[in-house]
Amino acid sequence: MRIAILLFDGVTALDAIGPYEVLSRLPGAEVQFVAESPGIKRTETRMLGLVADHATAAVREADILVVPGGFGEARVRDTPALLEWVRAIHERSRWTTSVCTGSLILGAAGVLRGLRATSHWSALEQLRSFDAEPTRERVVVQGKVITAAGVSSGIDMGLRLAQLEAGDQVAQAIQLGIEYDPAPPFDAGSPKKAPAHIVEAVRGFLENARAEIERAKTH
Amino acid sequence: MRIAILLFDGVTALDAIGPYEVLSRLPGAEVQFVAESPGIKRTETRMLGLVADHATAAVREADILVVPGGFGEARVRDTPALLEWVRAIHERSRWTTSVCTGSLILGAAGVLRGLRATSHWSALEQLRSFDAEPTRERVVVQGKVITAAGVSSGIDMGLRLAQLEAGDQVAQAIQLGIEYDPAPPFDAGSPKKAPAHIVEAVRGFLENARAEIERAKTH
Repeated sequence: MRIAILLFDGVTALDAIGPYEVLSRLPGAEVQFVAESPGIKRTETRMLGLVADHATAAVREADILVVPGGFGEARVRDTPALLEWVRAIHERSRWTTSVCTGSLILGAAGVLRGLRATSHWSALEQLRSFDAEPTRERVVVQGKVITAAGVSSGIDMGLRLAQLEAGDQVAQAIQLGIEYDPAPPFDAGSPKKAPAHIVEAVRGFLENARAEIERAKTH
Repeated sequence: MRIAILLFDGVTALDAIGPYEVLSRLPGAEVQFVAESPGIKRTETRMLGLVADHATAAVREADILVVPGGFGEARVRDTPALLEWVRAIHERSRWTTSVCTGSLILGAAGVLRGLRATSHWSALEQLRSFDAEPTRERVVVQGKVITAAGVSSGIDMGLRLAQLEAGDQVAQAIQLGIEYDPAPPFDAGSPKKAPAHIVEAVRGFLENARAEIERAKTH
């Protein structure tokens, strides 16, 4: 079971590591971290380096493709060779998946056309520009395409995929292995649940950050 | 706010990345990944490299120390210089924390003496050998020492710490930012909740793996 996880500068670490931590525990799993050019990719805070051991050019097939998000996704969408790679892997994959704004990359690659899909709550409406139907669910399964909501949702997506691929018992064993018995101190993890003024503050922060990135690209 | 996260070969990625993803979002956060010798550390599956940018010898203080676990923790406990470093950072830290079997490292450094503490459920009893009182809670706060249960619990620990350090609103904003609204497909994330035969299978697997590591150390 070959699992390819795409990395790029500006990735959100947990988008990639959540699914990694689950899927690497599947029987026979072989996870490859892949980037356009191999080497160290810095996360969006630049405070952490993750190592891509493999070049996209050297990875021709994967059973499972995981595309994480993060502010760096905007540059991935502007890189035709990477979108071409995503399309080529998708053509022969068993599962093509994304976490957070990784779904915008899948969208730009044409993978989500006509499908229901999700993304980080603040980026959900952007999916329309790729002919996808924004869907406020944590994990959206459409045939072999699975999209997950923001950042931490990749853990839930990974467990759902483990269940689909290896059955209930394996998925439960993995959940127990990573002691995923969540107990956050608040119930503020979605815009439906968090106080309205906090939703607006976070939305504003994220929209400004994305506008900044767009400006930086065109200047 | 300087946050030091210890890395080592054989670390469990999510133990480190869960707290990173939360704590790096604290206002003024500056996260440093630290190892005895800087460079790439491979996770326990060896499928992923995480970069330690800083040598422990170069990091003399931190406001928050995070010690993750993973099978590699056994070798950390056998490295007097690393235990000495943990003690020195702890002496002046605001918070000293662990995730999963990282608590065994804190224990070996003498940090948990006389305290209630937690760890991965399968390693909980080992805490007694460090004069700590094993406690089946997801996050255990004892003064400035916080221990968290297995792997994924570092996200909950991070949010609790964000709340203690920066208040409810900041913690809620971070939870919303990482869309932490967990929805696992099963309720099997703790040994109290998972089917008994799965608990026994996972326990057996982990105990064998640890015994293997101990044998490798002495041969």
